[in-house]
Amino acid sequence: MNAILDELTPVFYPRSIAVVGASSDETKSGSQFLKALVRVGYAGALYPVNRSAERSCGLPAFTSLQDIPGPVDYVIVAIPRNAVLSLLDDCAIKGVKAVQFFTAGFRESNAPNAAQLEREMASRARSGGFRIIGPNCIGIYNPSARIPYGPLGEIGEPGSVGFISQSGGHGGRLVELGLERRINFSKLVSFGNGADLDCVDFLEYLAADPETKIIGAYLESVSRGSQFVHLVRRVSKQKPVVIWKGGRSEAGSETAASHTGALSSSYSVWKAAMTQAGAIAVESLDELADTIIGLEAIGPDTGVRAAIVCGMGGGGGGESVLAADVFSGRGLEVHPFSDGTRSEIAALLPGAGTILRNPLDLGGILPRPQVLERVISLVLADENVDLLVVQEHLGKLMKSLVGDELNAVNQTLIASSRSKNKPLVVVAPAWARTEPALEIEDHLRRQGVPVYRSFETAAGSIARVARSFGRLRSNTT
Amino acid sequence: MNAILDELTPVFYPRSIAVVGASSDETKSGSQFLKALVRVGYAGALYPVNRSAERSCGLPAFTSLQDIPGPVDYVIVAIPRNAVLSLLDDCAIKGVKAVQFFTAGFRESNAPNAAQLEREMASRARSGGFRIIGPNCIGIYNPSARIPYGPLGEIGEPGSVGFISQSGGHGGRLVELGLERRINFSKLVSFGNGADLDCVDFLEYLAADPETKIIGAYLESVSRGSQFVHLVRRVSKQKPVVIWKGGRSEAGSETAASHTGALSSSYSVWKAAMTQAGAIAVESLDELADTIIGLEAIGPDTGVRAAIVCGMGGGGGGESVLAADVFSGRGLEVHPFSDGTRSEIAALLPGAGTILRNPLDLGGILPRPQVLERVISLVLADENVDLLVVQEHLGKLMKSLVGDELNAVNQTLIASSRSKNKPLVVVAPAWARTEPALEIEDHLRRQGVPVYRSFETAAGSIARVARSFGRLRSNTT
Repeated sequence: MNAILDELTPVFYPRSIAVVGASSDETKSGSQFLKALVRVGYAGALYPVNRSAERSCGLPAFTSLQDIPGPVDYVIVAIPRNAVLSLLDDCAIKGVKAVQFFTAGFRESNAPNAAQLEREMASRARSGGFRIIGPNCIGIYNPSARIPYGPLGEIGEPGSVGFISQSGGHGGRLVELGLERRINFSKLVSFGNGADLDCVDFLEYLAADPETKIIGAYLESVSRGSQFVHLVRRVSKQKPVVIWKGGRSEAGSETAASHTGALSSSYSVWKAAMTQAGAIAVESLDELADTIIGLEAIGPDTGVRAAIVCGMGGGGGGESVLAADVFSGRGLEVHPFSDGTRSEIAALLPGAGTILRNPLDLGGILPRPQVLERVISLVLADENVDLLVVQEHLGKLMKSLVGDELNAVNQTLIASSRSKNKPLVVVAPAWARTEPALEIEDHLRRQGVPVYRSFETAAGSIARVARSFGRLRSNTT
Repeated sequence: MNAILDELTPVFYPRSIAVVGASSDETKSGSQFLKALVRVGYAGALYPVNRSAERSCGLPAFTSLQDIPGPVDYVIVAIPRNAVLSLLDDCAIKGVKAVQFFTAGFRESNAPNAAQLEREMASRARSGGFRIIGPNCIGIYNPSARIPYGPLGEIGEPGSVGFISQSGGHGGRLVELGLERRINFSKLVSFGNGADLDCVDFLEYLAADPETKIIGAYLESVSRGSQFVHLVRRVSKQKPVVIWKGGRSEAGSETAASHTGALSSSYSVWKAAMTQAGAIAVESLDELADTIIGLEAIGPDTGVRAAIVCGMGGGGGGESVLAADVFSGRGLEVHPFSDGTRSEIAALLPGAGTILRNPLDLGGILPRPQVLERVISLVLADENVDLLVVQEHLGKLMKSLVGDELNAVNQTLIASSRSKNKPLVVVAPAWARTEPALEIEDHLRRQGVPVYRSFETAAGSIARVARSFGRLRSNTT
């Protein structure tokens, strides 16, 4: 075990958590942090701490950390700013591993002496032998340790995506989006102002963490810039690193200063440095999620020649034109099928209303299951095809197919793609999504099939990932 | 009334429709066209036509057009290709106004003599004194005449957006998307191969149509290129014209040839010509819809200084940074509030956890109604603010607010924006959308408030519209 794992594993897998500011008033943020931990079944010991030792969420409380009988690994703090220094002295005495401050109003604010107070906190942590996460943050999210994301308490299944977020809000939105799109996290941390532990520390930890296979980050500033760039260069050789930088514009960068006290540098300089260091730079939450999903679907050896199938649920001519435009616009190839594939497909499908080339437009009428299976199999076996993109208008298909027919269609697609060992992704339009259609989407995702909302986002995701694996040269994304 | 209105009004408002190919077999496309007309309550006479005079959808049928007792304005054709020429002769004798061919397999296919057959059809229509829509298309959609969109039968409320689509699929998706996002159409036409009536004719008609205020088009090719450009230049001075061109790439353009027999020119040349002619060029269905929605929200006199409010339902710091980045990245201004506004807001809202500037981050905790109303009113009254963008995490807000509280919040926003006469748009993230949240979105849309899925799409839409009104110069979108 290396040093950073030694130091941070007890923080991400605490045996016990104290919540300072949890009381009988359940509207308080501290009480909500505690309530969420209780609700999702955190297995370690939980200790509410408040001045009058009021019970909180059914648990006995303590007036101070020192009164807690057992050891405390992780402390969540949601009390006013003026009480934090004496609390840190208590933490040192108690021998905690890390303290996370939900409390805000430090370097990011205009409050007098706020920046100085933040430096003093970091200094007391150093002398006290523990670490600080924050202030002005949500802290640790670790599904395998049953630690939910902050007071709102979202928790998903454990996975292999590690994430570092300077913004608590974006971290939360990514967790939510992950619940919907089946992005499963090994762990995620919102670290706010980063007075002590910062993105360098957390990146080192996720690089060493055996549960983390893909690393993502939302950052507004990097205080140890050159160290971070060197680290990204090293880590990206072992695990893909996706970075979203906030505060790219002047207006955004001024806002970032008020958000997490960040002082950000020129975005173009930053983006060039990150790309040269082997990271994938993205510019929105959706791009971030789509890229992570792409990394889970497309391997380093996957080529860039996409077969595209349209016309499953509604005429697919226009969709086929669009798909060809956006995939080739992103630098991916929509290579013609070989003559053999074309003539075999032509013998199976009607000529009118369809387009029997790549993209293949089925023309809105789904062929009989055996025919569909044969067509998909021919497409996947084509020597000019590296991956398959299937557009399914799920709402429409559900109207025309009955019972499990749509599931059977999807199973056929999935089985064919597996037997040919070529990735399959689905494009399902975002509008008119009914509950049953969402269930089908979820089923596909659980089977490991990425579902994108549009050809644009699918092509963008695949192109970014292919470029990061060195399979696309030109910078068209 | 001008010539094009004279000629095409009976086509868009037919007194009677014959459906050739509608029979007792309800799986046939012709039967489905007829069924959809019956279901939505088309008020004119409906006549199924098939060789054995089988009743269809409960209506008595005829073996030929000539047998129909009354006049026939509009003919929908869904029969095999080899029967179309003799049908056209029948149409001439019957004195119909227009024939729409769902039938495909003409110029867009590889079938022998298909292009020649298509030319012959156009020639027979000319000599017969009627017009052809298609072949290979869905035809007319006119909610005010209770004509639904083709066999699937979608129909929305009548509105003021006129749309021309070379693709039946994209036309259908736009109708669906319109149902969800409350884009209401005056009329829409899918015209496929455009053997006779083409985009020039339909653009002239929509320009003259008093019910149409905004014109959109999806085109893969324009056969009468210079005439179309001249027309766009003239029309865009009276009504905004938004154009999405398919077949931009080589691959897409080859696909377009197989889709609607289109021979498309270089996209960059096309885009420059369209932009110079005053049209707004877009490159996807979502961009198209967002732009139309923006045109309905933002007027020619609206400035480009956006006030942005975040943190309604979840911490809004990261969102504020993002919003500032994307709005300024699109050339819009995120201008600081005046000192007076800032100090008044600072007196109303807490300093910790919020960001009291533009973007304004409420910090995740909604202020009391009177305070919120006062804050919004201050922001809107600021001399540096032209429009208001409010980010609402509806799913989260619904968890923390009860009953009609969220509606009350939205009413407050809407009323404030109206009283200051400055546009308001809402950004509601697309994920985690529950049914009740979707109802709130729909309520907002019915009140005339555009709801976008992200800051990126909102900023893109507003910037494109502002540029088309000459309020943004640089070409950053």
